[in-house]
Amino acid sequence: MTRAPLSRDEFIEWLRREGASRYHDHHRYHALMHDGKLTRLQLQQWVLNRYYYQTRIPIKDAIILSKSEDPAFRRMWIRRIRDHDGDEAGEAGLELWLRLAEGVGLDREEVASCRSVLPGVRFACDAYVTLVRDRSLVEAVASSMTEFFAPDLMSKRVLAWEKHYPWVSKDMLEYFRSRVPRARRDSLEAMEFVVGHATTYELQERCVAALIEKTRILWHLLDCAYAAYIEPGWGPDGPRV
Amino acid sequence: MTRAPLSRDEFIEWLRREGASRYHDHHRYHALMHDGKLTRLQLQQWVLNRYYYQTRIPIKDAIILSKSEDPAFRRMWIRRIRDHDGDEAGEAGLELWLRLAEGVGLDREEVASCRSVLPGVRFACDAYVTLVRDRSLVEAVASSMTEFFAPDLMSKRVLAWEKHYPWVSKDMLEYFRSRVPRARRDSLEAMEFVVGHATTYELQERCVAALIEKTRILWHLLDCAYAAYIEPGWGPDGPRV
Repeated sequence: MTRAPLSRDEFIEWLRREGASRYHDHHRYHALMHDGKLTRLQLQQWVLNRYYYQTRIPIKDAIILSKSEDPAFRRMWIRRIRDHDGDEAGEAGLELWLRLAEGVGLDREEVASCRSVLPGVRFACDAYVTLVRDRSLVEAVASSMTEFFAPDLMSKRVLAWEKHYPWVSKDMLEYFRSRVPRARRDSLEAMEFVVGHATTYELQERCVAALIEKTRILWHLLDCAYAAYIEPGWGPDGPRV
Repeated sequence: MTRAPLSRDEFIEWLRREGASRYHDHHRYHALMHDGKLTRLQLQQWVLNRYYYQTRIPIKDAIILSKSEDPAFRRMWIRRIRDHDGDEAGEAGLELWLRLAEGVGLDREEVASCRSVLPGVRFACDAYVTLVRDRSLVEAVASSMTEFFAPDLMSKRVLAWEKHYPWVSKDMLEYFRSRVPRARRDSLEAMEFVVGHATTYELQERCVAALIEKTRILWHLLDCAYAAYIEPGWGPDGPRV
């Protein structure tokens, strides 16, 4: 027997609930970061490793673009790629992240090369590209909806960094500031698309599953950084004894 | 024993030679078109079937985008998608092609639906997307280099249509006019990339093979239209007896 699709409100509530409870804002690495308890090296390594995630964004967004038959959808989605790559060199998301890397005292070329990224971080970020490639368009879009929870985290991060890591110039936090309105806009667009296109219960389930998988990817990135730079031996199920 | 790579000039000459001799400008369908010998239906069906090819362009370009790790390359290539989709609705390549379809007396929605596209045209156009997906970035870019030969064909086409098919309003030929400078620019960019990245003889060979495959795709599109609308029974090896 086929289960009837959830109503718009029920479906949104389900996505929000699963997303919010699993979002990496409450990962220990972030808790330490926002409490001002990361050392310079720990902050640097977070920036360095997370850069690899940033580099996957325009790639996965181009895959999403290639999955759509609708020029109107593509016109909307292409902006995400331009937000990260820029229309000219030296602007936009990837460049702002490299400036952040310089701001925390890293070598720009070292970060840009991605050669020191932790293996597990690479696996998780590559898994995001694979997820987007292998699943349907609506699932791929659903996986982007972690952005729904990003604005609060970004705003909190800017305040925390200004307070606790005064050695990082405030100008360097521009990436986080610029993401607040963009993440809000992007996640609402994604939600409208997902709600409009997940027209069966089975599709709604798949979208929730894609979002959950994405939260695991983001979470795992921090697990790897935690295990390597804060408490070696700590894993997803708590400290190993 | 590994063969040394060809020099830049030799490689470009090889690409040009293979591309020029196989380019669909000298296909019989085009010869009839440019001599003013197509009926209204034959012209219409060319426009309708070719539209499916047009719809594959932003999709294959998004795949190419997703294959590149270089923001500078992506900044260059993304323009191709914007050239076809536009930044706003009702502008750019796909829209101009639909206007051309209306200009030759077709129903816009019928063309946009792609439901009457010949099966072989669909196979060939889908094969282009598959080629771009399955091969390396440099081969995918090489396959786009048929555009090198497009400006002459487009210019010739505009003159021929104005002369022989006066019932098509001149305004409707804007797509072809707009493609002349863009195809020139795009093909030169592609050539620079291919020449710079096909650094071994084996890669050069693969790039030539990708370009040849692309010429076969374009050629087959016209074969299908010819077989269906001009001389049923005619195939790639000449009339069947």
